[in-house]
Amino acid sequence: MEIGPESHESAGFIARGWWWIMGLLMKLVTKVRNVANKIKRLGQDDPRRIIHSVKMGLALSLISLVYYFRPTYDSFGVSAMWAVLTVVVVFEFTVGATLGKGFNRGVATFLAGALGVGAHQLASLAGQEGEPMLLGLFVFLLAATASFSRFFPEIKARYDYGVLIFILTFCLVSVSGYRVEKLIELAHQRLSTILIGSFACVFVSIFVYPVWAGEELHNHIALNMEKIADFLEGFGGEYFDTEGSVGETSLVPKKDKSFLDRYKSVLNSNTTEENLANFARWEPCHARFRFRHPWKQYLKIGGLSRQCACRLEALSSYINSEGPQEFRKNIQDECIKMSSESAKTLTELASAIRTMTRPHSAYAHLANSKAAASNLKVTLKSALSLSSDLLQVIPAVTVTSLLVEVVACTEKIAESIDELAQLAKFKTVEVPIVILENPKTLHRVTIKKSDIKCPQLVITIEEPPPSLPGNIKLSKPLEKASH
Amino acid sequence: MEIGPESHESAGFIARGWWWIMGLLMKLVTKVRNVANKIKRLGQDDPRRIIHSVKMGLALSLISLVYYFRPTYDSFGVSAMWAVLTVVVVFEFTVGATLGKGFNRGVATFLAGALGVGAHQLASLAGQEGEPMLLGLFVFLLAATASFSRFFPEIKARYDYGVLIFILTFCLVSVSGYRVEKLIELAHQRLSTILIGSFACVFVSIFVYPVWAGEELHNHIALNMEKIADFLEGFGGEYFDTEGSVGETSLVPKKDKSFLDRYKSVLNSNTTEENLANFARWEPCHARFRFRHPWKQYLKIGGLSRQCACRLEALSSYINSEGPQEFRKNIQDECIKMSSESAKTLTELASAIRTMTRPHSAYAHLANSKAAASNLKVTLKSALSLSSDLLQVIPAVTVTSLLVEVVACTEKIAESIDELAQLAKFKTVEVPIVILENPKTLHRVTIKKSDIKCPQLVITIEEPPPSLPGNIKLSKPLEKASH
Repeated sequence: MEIGPESHESAGFIARGWWWIMGLLMKLVTKVRNVANKIKRLGQDDPRRIIHSVKMGLALSLISLVYYFRPTYDSFGVSAMWAVLTVVVVFEFTVGATLGKGFNRGVATFLAGALGVGAHQLASLAGQEGEPMLLGLFVFLLAATASFSRFFPEIKARYDYGVLIFILTFCLVSVSGYRVEKLIELAHQRLSTILIGSFACVFVSIFVYPVWAGEELHNHIALNMEKIADFLEGFGGEYFDTEGSVGETSLVPKKDKSFLDRYKSVLNSNTTEENLANFARWEPCHARFRFRHPWKQYLKIGGLSRQCACRLEALSSYINSEGPQEFRKNIQDECIKMSSESAKTLTELASAIRTMTRPHSAYAHLANSKAAASNLKVTLKSALSLSSDLLQVIPAVTVTSLLVEVVACTEKIAESIDELAQLAKFKTVEVPIVILENPKTLHRVTIKKSDIKCPQLVITIEEPPPSLPGNIKLSKPLEKASH
Repeated sequence: MEIGPESHESAGFIARGWWWIMGLLMKLVTKVRNVANKIKRLGQDDPRRIIHSVKMGLALSLISLVYYFRPTYDSFGVSAMWAVLTVVVVFEFTVGATLGKGFNRGVATFLAGALGVGAHQLASLAGQEGEPMLLGLFVFLLAATASFSRFFPEIKARYDYGVLIFILTFCLVSVSGYRVEKLIELAHQRLSTILIGSFACVFVSIFVYPVWAGEELHNHIALNMEKIADFLEGFGGEYFDTEGSVGETSLVPKKDKSFLDRYKSVLNSNTTEENLANFARWEPCHARFRFRHPWKQYLKIGGLSRQCACRLEALSSYINSEGPQEFRKNIQDECIKMSSESAKTLTELASAIRTMTRPHSAYAHLANSKAAASNLKVTLKSALSLSSDLLQVIPAVTVTSLLVEVVACTEKIAESIDELAQLAKFKTVEVPIVILENPKTLHRVTIKKSDIKCPQLVITIEEPPPSLPGNIKLSKPLEKASH
């Protein structure tokens, strides 16, 4: 069979068309896949986002029933719409935020409704001409005063939404132009529907996979400390960048460098923490938290964590600095000890927060890091006297100096967590493991879990070698733990 | 006349009563005065707060007219209440926030209204039994999807309120139970009243003492740099703490120590800046800002300022550190120069932002601070070789090292402001004053305003003395300025 040029041409045309359509389809598929991936990642990062969305749908479908049940619809009329409105506006990600908004909305509607009816009554005394003018004046005065009150930090933090609803309801009631009997009926309907809406929100929010703002804050603070610990743990390997291991600390730099940046989110976590603390204050007792859990103390710890993260920020600019290898080798042991023991302290403190137990083992690591900071002085003195070019060692000296600051910061964090443990009555674990070690001294005290039966342990070395002041301080944090 | 014991007693009783009442009154007066003082301070800190409150009252009184004018009331009916609701919710402190909310509310109401009517039509096809079930399903699906979309950072930043109103309107329309004709009439009324409300807000917000988010951001960034400059300016006097003056810089520590803490607010300014930048993007061209002013560049500058503030935080922990006076005296000249010239650079950069002119004079100060950082190396070398106890000088060495970092930070800020100047087309001042000085070198170049006629000046020293690398770099920032 012979194939003519026309059929050749048309075959080519069809093929081109086919490929063009296929190309377009492929592009579309890629685009859809990208969006799907984005959505998937968003869901995977925090699956509670998906749960929250489903909960929102659930709460709204629930409240829609108000419309479908004729009896409720007949008694509430168009006001039933306020229940829907309330659910959309009040339902928030955390229980605390939902409770706060629901409370604000309910109380503000009640107060403003009562005040609005009063204003209406008062204005009606002024006659038909004076009434609108007087009402206009009332609206102006109340709106201006209430708006100004929103600038007070205390009101802004907890009652901002309430003030908004207060202005709203007062305006609606006072200018509505209804007679007072009709007004009171309306106000009653509106308040009931708002209460129904708020209760639906609170119910779904508390009983279907609840997200407690308090628990969020609790975990957030612990996570921030772990991020700082991550940096400090990896810092030694990254800065000294040598293979092999010195003492017990491996010096191989980590392959995944993300730990170098994770602490940065700590620097900007101020607003998140404040919001969570404000929401948490609305929450009833839940899981391991009482109603008046010391949320403010978390803000203090958060502030100290940010201070510590600031030191890391200063430290990170020296991570790739040059300098004589000889000098670095001399100080690397103590520096790595300081940074890794601080990291361990913070990790232990974070895990103490997570488990709500007193952080006994953290104090041992803190003591180790402080001992390393003390020993560093001796090491530095000899290292400095050996080095020929003092100018070249300045970056390394700065690093050690900043590490000492980090140790001091860690101690402050430990102290404030100790305060938290007292305020929130953290559990005391029965047998703490206390490992005190100082490789530069003749003493090496390692006490294992099976050796001790008492819940607290204070070690005091009676005649400390005068050259090692670090040892004297060892008992201090342990004493603190037995408060 | 004799006075009996009874009248004595009663006189004492009256006197006690009198003092008790007076005491109570005094307490009340004190309390009222305290609250009044608080309000006064809040108003004095930012008088625009009072203006905003008055504007809110004005906008609400304006919109209340909708109720009083019978013709408008007759055509809108109860829907007129949506105008009031819109004003209360949409009216915000800045023009950008008001515009963004108004736009979100209008567009979301329109879209969700149309979609709701469609859903209603579709559901009515399913018969009387199927309709509520189908509508419930629609509400669930849309509410869940829209709620999830609020977790996307891009949507959260600009369209969060719109998505909320979208869910709200869709639910109201789709479950309302009206016939379609009635629905369309209602939707039309609601949309018109919302548009009227939004326009009233936008009108008052733009034409009565407007507060532009863009201008706020602009000034906020400049203010943050001035706070950092404040610290650096005072740091020398505070750290070296000696009377008299060395070189050109006075060393008397400032009496008011508030400059030591002002920079701290910079550390937590991230959220404020991001919000302002989001609002600013809604704003039309105003005063000196175009519609597409490079607001993102401000966020970059803000981030660098925070980095710099972090260095100050590290620096501030050394402010009271001890150390040998001899060593300090040797380095104090260069240290004070670095810190005060950095302060001058930042002040000049801030004033360049405020006046929207290219920051020529800042480059000269930057060059001075970099020269001081270079000279410092020589000074440090000799100072270190002279000092007997190297361990004692470590805090002072760390301070110098951190100051060098601050200088580097300042340079980065200057670069990003240079970028901003190009993007936003800042004016070039006609005759810049360029003063290059380096007291440690033989060259001292001082060029006064009257000496030069050209708008740009590039100085290149042809044969730089090899020991002073700082001088070679002098021309760089000036070249950059002539781009």
